[in-house]
Amino acid sequence: MLVRRPADGHVTKDLFRVEKAPIAAPAPGEVLLRIEYFSADPYLIRQLNGLGNYVPKLSPGAPMFSRTLGTVVRSKDPAWKSGDKALAVADWGEYCVVDARKLVRLDPVIAPLPSFLSVMGHSGLTAWGGLLDIGRPKAGETVLVTSAGGPVGQASGQMAKIKGCRVVGVAGGQAKCRTLVEELGFDACVDYRSADFEKQLAAAVPNGIDLHCESIGAPMLDPALLCMNRHARIVLFGIIANYDNTPFVLKNANRLLDCSVTLRAFSVSEYLSRWSEFQAEMGGWVRAGKVKSRDTIHEGLDRAAEAMVALTTGEGIGKQIIRVEAAGTAMKQAGADLPCQEQ
Amino acid sequence: MLVRRPADGHVTKDLFRVEKAPIAAPAPGEVLLRIEYFSADPYLIRQLNGLGNYVPKLSPGAPMFSRTLGTVVRSKDPAWKSGDKALAVADWGEYCVVDARKLVRLDPVIAPLPSFLSVMGHSGLTAWGGLLDIGRPKAGETVLVTSAGGPVGQASGQMAKIKGCRVVGVAGGQAKCRTLVEELGFDACVDYRSADFEKQLAAAVPNGIDLHCESIGAPMLDPALLCMNRHARIVLFGIIANYDNTPFVLKNANRLLDCSVTLRAFSVSEYLSRWSEFQAEMGGWVRAGKVKSRDTIHEGLDRAAEAMVALTTGEGIGKQIIRVEAAGTAMKQAGADLPCQEQ
Repeated sequence: MLVRRPADGHVTKDLFRVEKAPIAAPAPGEVLLRIEYFSADPYLIRQLNGLGNYVPKLSPGAPMFSRTLGTVVRSKDPAWKSGDKALAVADWGEYCVVDARKLVRLDPVIAPLPSFLSVMGHSGLTAWGGLLDIGRPKAGETVLVTSAGGPVGQASGQMAKIKGCRVVGVAGGQAKCRTLVEELGFDACVDYRSADFEKQLAAAVPNGIDLHCESIGAPMLDPALLCMNRHARIVLFGIIANYDNTPFVLKNANRLLDCSVTLRAFSVSEYLSRWSEFQAEMGGWVRAGKVKSRDTIHEGLDRAAEAMVALTTGEGIGKQIIRVEAAGTAMKQAGADLPCQEQ
Repeated sequence: MLVRRPADGHVTKDLFRVEKAPIAAPAPGEVLLRIEYFSADPYLIRQLNGLGNYVPKLSPGAPMFSRTLGTVVRSKDPAWKSGDKALAVADWGEYCVVDARKLVRLDPVIAPLPSFLSVMGHSGLTAWGGLLDIGRPKAGETVLVTSAGGPVGQASGQMAKIKGCRVVGVAGGQAKCRTLVEELGFDACVDYRSADFEKQLAAAVPNGIDLHCESIGAPMLDPALLCMNRHARIVLFGIIANYDNTPFVLKNANRLLDCSVTLRAFSVSEYLSRWSEFQAEMGGWVRAGKVKSRDTIHEGLDRAAEAMVALTTGEGIGKQIIRVEAAGTAMKQAGADLPCQEQ
């Protein structure tokens, strides 16, 4: 649960606490889900700061919630049976009762289960809608991807490669940059922690930026503006640097005018109706090895706070995923304190 | 001429000086223009700060230049004859030699001569391209226009009214707001100098903003973001508040994402090829009294510095136009020191 809102917008581990709570029984139309994985998502930072209007806000004293992957263990809905794998928005914990109409059925044959929280999940859908539908990369263009090590950035960059672009990532740390170039096929990756970051960025895009995928906010967008080509497009996937209400400050805003830039902000909700189409296309790329994902798994429910902090410090690569039952341990009291199944 | 660049980006009268210089003779392919009017344009602020890449920079010690209206007094080009009225980019002064290929022929029957520096000139073209082609206002939408008293704002707001929108302006001072509502047909106008500006703004757009025409920059865009509707469009005509290199600071940037906003920056150069089409359409509206202009005429060449300062302080309405020969005075030595016409 969320203990309190951050006083200064800053996410720290002591904002969160694990509590024991009784497991509820599903009412008609509901299922009880055993949660295997859930993700720490950037938009949660806005929610726990009491901001944002396209997602419900989090309240101190109430459970954290986000997208989760789990197995149905009790069903009071004819469409679902025990053992079914589902994606749901649910409270963080070992079990959760969920409205069956809000479950998304998963086929773990398509891709490994945790990937439905990253490349095959809403992060992948965000990248798919933002890069392909809004960004519309054309072969030969230069695409810059910030937060390239994040799940949206990884997928965006690899799809831009599929479309024939030169793809340059921006990520934190040499190790992450190496992974993106050597394992995920980025043409180059610039470490924003480098002292001469702006110089390295300019050198990495000798033909300028045609399409810019921004997930961080002003600190990354500002230097990139200096490298934009005329009629460059910016897809604003997110501005995590500003989710704690830090002002959005551009020194190079005049470049928007100089380059006749188009900026389009969006949220994944615009693409939810195209989930099946996305699953088919991304699933094909994932199975063909054309889009890979590298995620960070935090082992155990009590590491969720650490995953939230990692969101803001840039530690770890890919989606910050919490595996509820830490690897090598038995699920605590698995099944033992479940409510009786009503027959 | 420009004496020096502003030390702190701030425009003051002492940056400029009027100097006497001999009148050059036109070479073949050139004409000598007697300049009747020229305008102090917002983009000049960037130029005199040595910024911007879509227009030539101004150099200390060199003449100021901008768009001018004048009469051909000597022609060395067969397409032009003495007495022809022309729009040209020329050095500020009483006379200037101009490349005949860069002159635009004016028909003062369409509209009064000075209006070719405002509603019938590049300001009008900017409004026409930005509002109609980029903004694409639809009947019933709410359009907010900042710098509504400026020449681009006046034309944008009136064209949005022609398209059936509710049009709200933002301008500096009650007098300007009254002119826009009572004389130019804006539905409402909010004075940004009011202590409760943000509250007044919200009250003036009860159905939210669908299309936002921004010419000032972050100080106006930031409060407007709080009133944006989902999928609102922002047309970035200019960011005069940032032309002196003041950083562009948004507190409400998250609203871009909340509302899936599209922002499109542009420059008038994108529409220069459609000049004739613009002249025909805007000329029709001007003659029909559907688009009016209210401009500020500064009388006499030595008032040009004052016009430049007015650009940044928001004094005066409409285009800041300098009439070279102050009303009621004879043109100094008119014709007397002209170079001899070679026959």
